[in-house]
Amino acid sequence: MEKGPWHYGADYVTVYFKGEPEKLAGLLPPAFVVDPSGMCLAYVCEIVSVAEGQADLAYSRPDRTLYQEAAVGVKCSRGEKSGVFYPVMWVTTEWSLLRGLVNGYQKRLADRISMTKLHPLNPGMEPLVPGAKFSGFCVKGPEKTLEVRVEVTQKSNAGSLPAFGPTFGMRRLPQTGPGQASVEEPVEILKSNSRTEDVWTGSGWVNTTLDVGDPREPHGAVYRGGFTISGSKVI
Amino acid sequence: MEKGPWHYGADYVTVYFKGEPEKLAGLLPPAFVVDPSGMCLAYVCEIVSVAEGQADLAYSRPDRTLYQEAAVGVKCSRGEKSGVFYPVMWVTTEWSLLRGLVNGYQKRLADRISMTKLHPLNPGMEPLVPGAKFSGFCVKGPEKTLEVRVEVTQKSNAGSLPAFGPTFGMRRLPQTGPGQASVEEPVEILKSNSRTEDVWTGSGWVNTTLDVGDPREPHGAVYRGGFTISGSKVI
Amino acid sequence: MEKGPWHYGADYVTVYFKGEPEKLAGLLPPAFVVDPSGMCLAYVCEIVSVAEGQADLAYSRPDRTLYQEAAVGVKCSRGEKSGVFYPVMWVTTEWSLLRGLVNGYQKRLADRISMTKLHPLNPGMEPLVPGAKFSGFCVKGPEKTLEVRVEVTQKSNAGSLPAFGPTFGMRRLPQTGPGQASVEEPVEILKSNSRTEDVWTGSGWVNTTLDVGDPREPHGAVYRGGFTISGSKVI
Amino acid sequence: MEKGPWHYGADYVTVYFKGEPEKLAGLLPPAFVVDPSGMCLAYVCEIVSVAEGQADLAYSRPDRTLYQEAAVGVKCSRGEKSGVFYPVMWVTTEWSLLRGLVNGYQKRLADRISMTKLHPLNPGMEPLVPGAKFSGFCVKGPEKTLEVRVEVTQKSNAGSLPAFGPTFGMRRLPQTGPGQASVEEPVEILKSNSRTEDVWTGSGWVNTTLDVGDPREPHGAVYRGGFTISGSKVI
Repeated sequence: MEKGPWHYGADYVTVYFKGEPEKLAGLLPPAFVVDPSGMCLAYVCEIVSVAEGQADLAYSRPDRTLYQEAAVGVKCSRGEKSGVFYPVMWVTTEWSLLRGLVNGYQKRLADRISMTKLHPLNPGMEPLVPGAKFSGFCVKGPEKTLEVRVEVTQKSNAGSLPAFGPTFGMRRLPQTGPGQASVEEPVEILKSNSRTEDVWTGSGWVNTTLDVGDPREPHGAVYRGGFTISGSKVI
Repeated sequence: MEKGPWHYGADYVTVYFKGEPEKLAGLLPPAFVVDPSGMCLAYVCEIVSVAEGQADLAYSRPDRTLYQEAAVGVKCSRGEKSGVFYPVMWVTTEWSLLRGLVNGYQKRLADRISMTKLHPLNPGMEPLVPGAKFSGFCVKGPEKTLEVRVEVTQKSNAGSLPAFGPTFGMRRLPQTGPGQASVEEPVEILKSNSRTEDVWTGSGWVNTTLDVGDPREPHGAVYRGGFTISGSKVI
Repeated sequence: MEKGPWHYGADYVTVYFKGEPEKLAGLLPPAFVVDPSGMCLAYVCEIVSVAEGQADLAYSRPDRTLYQEAAVGVKCSRGEKSGVFYPVMWVTTEWSLLRGLVNGYQKRLADRISMTKLHPLNPGMEPLVPGAKFSGFCVKGPEKTLEVRVEVTQKSNAGSLPAFGPTFGMRRLPQTGPGQASVEEPVEILKSNSRTEDVWTGSGWVNTTLDVGDPREPHGAVYRGGFTISGSKVI
Repeated sequence: MEKGPWHYGADYVTVYFKGEPEKLAGLLPPAFVVDPSGMCLAYVCEIVSVAEGQADLAYSRPDRTLYQEAAVGVKCSRGEKSGVFYPVMWVTTEWSLLRGLVNGYQKRLADRISMTKLHPLNPGMEPLVPGAKFSGFCVKGPEKTLEVRVEVTQKSNAGSLPAFGPTFGMRRLPQTGPGQASVEEPVEILKSNSRTEDVWTGSGWVNTTLDVGDPREPHGAVYRGGFTISGSKVI
């Protein structure tokens, strides 16, 4: 696995919603307290990622710079600090799985993640206009673990999207025998260089095998984002 | 399988080269005569495709509107008419495989096709500038069946790309027993609405398991294209 | 594609059931008449297959001799002759897909087919005894298209399994433009060398996205089979 | 991830060979000293695995009990103790990847692992007799990372196979930021209930992207094995 920092550029289909707080609590490790608002987000995205100084990998090994990701995040807090914890984050490649685990993400491998793509030169497709519809789904084993749908109504901006604060995580290495270390560290992801562009917002719909309760007040957005992750710090 | 016409929007990494005509002849059905120039192209691309009136499928079933394709084409003629025949065209989905076969493409299924993607918001990546490098490869079983590499030197335009003329194909349905029809029809693909944009050209490199001989005078391009295929006609 | 005859050895998890005849009729081409009994079968299996004289391929290209298959079959007749037609047969490899299509099977590609395997040396597993449970499922896109479950109660023999008679099919090559042939041939698969061994029978359960109506009187079996297909003849 | 112990039943195609000790040393962590003999093994196998008390998973989620594995092992020692360390072990499922990592295996995900299977009822296949040939390969990204080939000459027994002693490993959790634990523990896998049956031996051939030097004195075997892993202990 390449050392960080790691740089990311991503295209998202995201739904924001409120879950049932007592159910959401069951998705968090004891280190984190669910927010009373029940605020959540769920997204499917495609990500181009390279490690610092390794941009050339997109050329020499393109399979190691592109992956799909699907995740559900729950607004929560640790002490005074409010943020978001992702009980599961499905990805389509080994390197994003392992990189995420060492940083404290609860990553798991998807069998398949698929999402709407428009192409500006396709003669049978409309460009991105009000009314455009996007979706994404994640399949693992016999299950569709997450599906999101968004119908955009207007061009918008990053400031109009709900803010969740920093991303929390939990680094884990369980013991399996004598003499072994046991790691279970609540962390905050060290994120910088964040940008969000090409934002469109509208209605949303979400369904997941995670027990979030009945999703209320769903609304959606599609956008592009970029950021850098240098690691995570124990909190 | 949805009826056509079918609309396509695609992002290409393409290498143009000259193969050895006597070897290229071995890749063509007898209905087509290899061009003495030995002109060939090889590409890897990602395609967004929808059938006429079915643009909504990109939303309801995104997995049925996106695929990757890798192919090698050989300049050739049938009678007076000059064009290009693709001895094999690997794709990543069933529906592009079957749709292609009924139109006369020699489609086969890839295990994996991967290609360079840049993302404008990735803080660790350069934008598309002179010197940008692109590649793509196709894996099937234990083999890397095709790899292309391009380093772009300048922004260019569609007119600067080598022209191959119409696309030829061969529709086939072999007999496997008594009373069956046997189809082997040389065809020309019925293509319209062609557009090519965002063209960059530069140096190229290609390697394939197809026996094209030693590739001479390779040069490369990356570009986006759009077109419509309504079917094919017997020639 | 290798020429036939093709030889097969397979391990099955199969459920026999009765569907609703009026719904089953909707799954058959007009050339076939659904049997009033509504008799159906659904199975998931793993198949080792080699073409005549090509047994060495299991060594030189093992990926081209092993695949998984999932299918639903409907008892029906053509004229005086009774048999079984499979409205869809999902497979996991290109070569089984294409070989099936030219013989008249309605093959489609699965994303994943998974089924129970026991291993005699696994210290945590029971051997195959009464009460042993087997299942299999097929996933395509966002859907689980078929799932079968069997709990065996007794060792049995091939004669105890429901007989469906010969396998019917439909060879198709649709027209997509001027001058093209159009093939639509009802066929009977030419099958020989059939053997069925290691049969266990018991209870069964089935669920499929095919509209077979409510499955009645399900019962199940696991067994191994071998056979040869030399092609198909028009009927 | 299910807690252990974990039970395994596997079918192997294995090649034993001698690598170049100075190159093999480059494949081991400093905690282990390469054996002067240069003894190595490489295998491809299919594994049925269930956790203690979870045998039912083979029925309820068959996709979580079957996987393929490909690995290269190097004879080495830690202090007085001699054993085998696997610099890399490719697997086809997430759960075998993660379970292996917490136990200290250097697991990585394969894109595809394929191996010869014979089927006793396939009319076109010979049974397992002297002269029978087996192979297996592993593909990851654009590379075939391992290929093994075996031609058996005689029925044999477990005692005739080279012994490597216990399996060593290295549990790792690297730091990515402030306050984090850093784990790097040499371990010995806790293995019991080992059985090896249906052994055939013969000639062997191996090729791998790991730098083992020129493989000398290769010979091969196919066999079935069963064992239990309860975890690993720090050594």
